[in-house]
Amino acid sequence: VSVITLTTDFGTGSSYGAAMKGVILTINPAVTVIDITHDIRPQDVRHGALILEEVTDRFPPDTIHVAVVDPGVGTDRAIVFVQIGRQRYLAPDNGLLSRLTCRQPPSQVIQLTEPAYWLEPVSETFHGRDILAPAAAWLSLGLRPERLGTPRQRLVDLDWPVPRCQPGSVEGQVLTIDSFGNLITNITVDLLGDVPRDERTRIAIGDRQITGIGRTYGTRPEGTLIALVGSSGRLEVAVVGGNAAATLHVGGGTPVSLTTTLIA
Amino acid sequence: VSVITLTTDFGTGSSYGAAMKGVILTINPAVTVIDITHDIRPQDVRHGALILEEVTDRFPPDTIHVAVVDPGVGTDRAIVFVQIGRQRYLAPDNGLLSRLTCRQPPSQVIQLTEPAYWLEPVSETFHGRDILAPAAAWLSLGLRPERLGTPRQRLVDLDWPVPRCQPGSVEGQVLTIDSFGNLITNITVDLLGDVPRDERTRIAIGDRQITGIGRTYGTRPEGTLIALVGSSGRLEVAVVGGNAAATLHVGGGTPVSLTTTLIA
Amino acid sequence: VSVITLTTDFGTGSSYGAAMKGVILTINPAVTVIDITHDIRPQDVRHGALILEEVTDRFPPDTIHVAVVDPGVGTDRAIVFVQIGRQRYLAPDNGLLSRLTCRQPPSQVIQLTEPAYWLEPVSETFHGRDILAPAAAWLSLGLRPERLGTPRQRLVDLDWPVPRCQPGSVEGQVLTIDSFGNLITNITVDLLGDVPRDERTRIAIGDRQITGIGRTYGTRPEGTLIALVGSSGRLEVAVVGGNAAATLHVGGGTPVSLTTTLIA
Repeated sequence: VSVITLTTDFGTGSSYGAAMKGVILTINPAVTVIDITHDIRPQDVRHGALILEEVTDRFPPDTIHVAVVDPGVGTDRAIVFVQIGRQRYLAPDNGLLSRLTCRQPPSQVIQLTEPAYWLEPVSETFHGRDILAPAAAWLSLGLRPERLGTPRQRLVDLDWPVPRCQPGSVEGQVLTIDSFGNLITNITVDLLGDVPRDERTRIAIGDRQITGIGRTYGTRPEGTLIALVGSSGRLEVAVVGGNAAATLHVGGGTPVSLTTTLIA
Repeated sequence: VSVITLTTDFGTGSSYGAAMKGVILTINPAVTVIDITHDIRPQDVRHGALILEEVTDRFPPDTIHVAVVDPGVGTDRAIVFVQIGRQRYLAPDNGLLSRLTCRQPPSQVIQLTEPAYWLEPVSETFHGRDILAPAAAWLSLGLRPERLGTPRQRLVDLDWPVPRCQPGSVEGQVLTIDSFGNLITNITVDLLGDVPRDERTRIAIGDRQITGIGRTYGTRPEGTLIALVGSSGRLEVAVVGGNAAATLHVGGGTPVSLTTTLIA
Repeated sequence: VSVITLTTDFGTGSSYGAAMKGVILTINPAVTVIDITHDIRPQDVRHGALILEEVTDRFPPDTIHVAVVDPGVGTDRAIVFVQIGRQRYLAPDNGLLSRLTCRQPPSQVIQLTEPAYWLEPVSETFHGRDILAPAAAWLSLGLRPERLGTPRQRLVDLDWPVPRCQPGSVEGQVLTIDSFGNLITNITVDLLGDVPRDERTRIAIGDRQITGIGRTYGTRPEGTLIALVGSSGRLEVAVVGGNAAATLHVGGGTPVSLTTTLIA
């Protein structure tokens, strides 16, 4: 049984994701198609990249992940097949895969240039349906990726801000906002290894200050602003039972600083 | 062919539901995974319980329903397997299954304590992915439920307000709001057996009064406030072509009273 | 492998689509059920008709498309099976299929009158679950459509406004709005065959004027109001990286005129 996933910014109200499924099932009726989400913020490549990083390695080996967040559709940006570990990706080459490739270098990159595996005529605004979906379906039937086009050496990168660490402090920022309004930061759990989780550590964001890093949503009263390490291994700022982004009026790029007082 | 369903408050924009599907398909690639909804109001256990009651008995026998509305994740609340009739459930023990168990007592309750069937390491904020999803997948492969942990006698209950009935009147309340803005009440069709559906019966909610219980949405002009028995067998208050919750500014807990004038 | 699709206005937050899937899988556990969308604007038959036209011919031959946008549920409107080309449809007879049938006349129309293939008792407000879903499941198992009821000659039509064309101008209107806020018009690409795409052509909508027909979203700066031919082959008005419907405060029925100055 082979699996194809879809990650797009089409919205659940559009028929575009369904068009891709129709094309896929016409070529390979036996494949399992799974929606990761169609609610990537429109044309927000960074949001798409974080979602792909978060979830795709949970899928069975050889799963084909199709990602369409594609503000450059119809321009000369490339479309690529990328093998990263045991997972396979098809996406526009615009940085969507940059979180994944900075964790693990790809073992194969192919630029899709072979129209024999496309739907004709190719729409200028919907390469997801006309190029990516049929390519995914053919791969799921066992087509070797090199048949899709020509090898490529480089992929487009995105600027991923790196937290600055000093003894007793980490300066990071908000990368994206999840569907609960939780603020997902670029401060990952590995940077927090020895940082005490109690009142010695304070997190500052906007004009608010949070004391300590909580272990879970369930341990504080409703409405409390908390910091915790979320399921994706990143420091998150959340409001218990509420929406942190709306409460704090902050978004991507907002600085988040963590300081630890070492009481002797 | 076995079926696993998902009912969560993750939102369609998050990748959390997809992470659960990835885990499930990695263990059992042949299972069919169906989304009931990921749009339970965040942390609204009561809303989740009503949705589970509404829909789960429509599924094939031995379907495994996984429900994650879990404000207590990471606290010491239990996670349970529950067999109710021919349907099987995996959920935090927080009342999510209380509508189902008050209709039909469970024939088996197991508290999940056996980490051999969990994903390691278990995240403190995402038991859906790390405990519930793999347990569901193993069950779908034929694992006997008693292998997941230890028998349990009681389940957490929720307070479900019961309508007060007197000759000629029923005093109930709004339990939840559906995606059309229809107000779903705790007045079920069995309480309405002999009540006339015509102008002799009036429904009061907020400062509005509705005359008669309609048979369907299609019989009144747009914008009319109506009362009818919905597909889940509950008295609902709706606006034809509109949103009753927004129009009346009411929500869960709002009293709804039904009075019948017996004209001699 | 057979495929059933669902197109409804239930909303992703309701359990109604899931109830239909439960009914379908109980009758035919091996069928693949695909959501086209559950976010048709509530009771907007015209919106549903355009989505069905856009996407259903992308599916494998003999796919069964179930559409439920049904403001007349419970009245005496018919429910029909319709064969159009290699695709099969089940829907209330209210114009939902009128875009499809005006492109290609149906080869078979059956009114569903045979309760042997319905779920008993039939709810007065949810024919999707109790009539359409089981009928689709039985068809997917090979039941011949004529077993579902009696032949029918006519289908309900909708008024689809036709653009008025004169030398140098086309007068059309907005038909619907997609999930990006793009305004989808009734001006199709075949009407634009010889129209220059450059500054000689202007599009007027509301009090705004657009110069030229763009080729793609990616070629103009953020916030620019553009006109382009979308993936469904219709002239669309969009805002790059934004929402045209919200920006222009316009909706269905708004006039859109296209004029071409032939510079000698």
